[in-house]
Amino acid sequence: MKELSERLRQQMAFLLEIDKEKFITRQTFLSDGKRRENDAEHAWHLAMMVLILGEYANEKIDLLRTVSMVLAHDLVEIYAGDTFAYDEEGKKTQRQREEVAADRLFALLPEDQRDALRGLWEEFEAAKTPEAAFARAMDNLQPTMLNAATDGIAWTEHRTKLSSVLKRQELTPVGSKTLWELCRDQYLVPAVERGKIADDLAPEEKPVDWPQSE
Amino acid sequence: MKELSERLRQQMAFLLEIDKEKFITRQTFLSDGKRRENDAEHAWHLAMMVLILGEYANEKIDLLRTVSMVLAHDLVEIYAGDTFAYDEEGKKTQRQREEVAADRLFALLPEDQRDALRGLWEEFEAAKTPEAAFARAMDNLQPTMLNAATDGIAWTEHRTKLSSVLKRQELTPVGSKTLWELCRDQYLVPAVERGKIADDLAPEEKPVDWPQSE
Repeated sequence: MKELSERLRQQMAFLLEIDKEKFITRQTFLSDGKRRENDAEHAWHLAMMVLILGEYANEKIDLLRTVSMVLAHDLVEIYAGDTFAYDEEGKKTQRQREEVAADRLFALLPEDQRDALRGLWEEFEAAKTPEAAFARAMDNLQPTMLNAATDGIAWTEHRTKLSSVLKRQELTPVGSKTLWELCRDQYLVPAVERGKIADDLAPEEKPVDWPQSE
Repeated sequence: MKELSERLRQQMAFLLEIDKEKFITRQTFLSDGKRRENDAEHAWHLAMMVLILGEYANEKIDLLRTVSMVLAHDLVEIYAGDTFAYDEEGKKTQRQREEVAADRLFALLPEDQRDALRGLWEEFEAAKTPEAAFARAMDNLQPTMLNAATDGIAWTEHRTKLSSVLKRQELTPVGSKTLWELCRDQYLVPAVERGKIADDLAPEEKPVDWPQSE
């Protein structure tokens, strides 16, 4: 029996630990409306979206870097839990809880990979690079697509307001103007018209690119 | 409201359709032993393994190509269903069912992306390139890791035989000699010793690199 190198032992311990990402439930329902999505499914879906939609990034992106980022972006939730996008109380402590989780989780890896994955997560959070902006756009677009497909179950359940949705979506046009327009016209405007998202904004408070109601 | 291009309409239809990969249940249990894994979770886990373990490929691999391949390798199961690795009857019709499924699913995409994803799937199936061999190794290693972590629930349930396991693992050393040795020594040999995998092979029928029982 061959001795396992310390490096490989660490890598396998990490890869088994992250199986727990499949236990972290999000608020979004799957397209059949039967159950909520988990973080691993969500990350897989984002990675497929990067591969198929990468051509719409405002600036040319490195696909491997962007795919790696979306695959890893929610790993810290294994210890910190999912914070719902519109949970204002939870969001106050989110960054701190996730920092602690990142320290603990990425420490399982050999140093070089610990730094690389931590770096990808920090880059995603900071949202300053074209890759991170596009990854954030996907992270906004994917649940919106699923919410629209289930006629807004999650929106109605949480009495989601347009002001909160637009705040959440602020980074979408930074990542991709084309996909922001898709998101607005195909998913958000119809959801507001059908009362699935509560319109709490006066016409003059709406973004300039929001269509005028007739 | 901006007109959606036909290309983007096709891409979004595909991206919504593949949400169904989350409904396809595999035989493997998650590491807590509480429920079976689905195809999307499995694909995400393989992609993370490629990023962390790619350095152990026998031949240098293109990481983006390999990650894309594992993300997409089970998409055809959305229409063809999962065929359990040791279901000999199901495997007789598997290729034909999956061909039909691939024609139908990838046709949702614009032509260039249809051909690209179909190509990745064919490459994975043929297992001739270093990328495909490594992807296949991950596809064997990941459920073995989870089976070992759950003390072999899925193995015991299916009365899995060593001969079947070794046949399934044939491509693992082709992708990575190091990871095959890990798989053998850390997961398979202990599972045989603990009776979780039924040893149906005489000593002379075992592979040359299988450790001698004391």
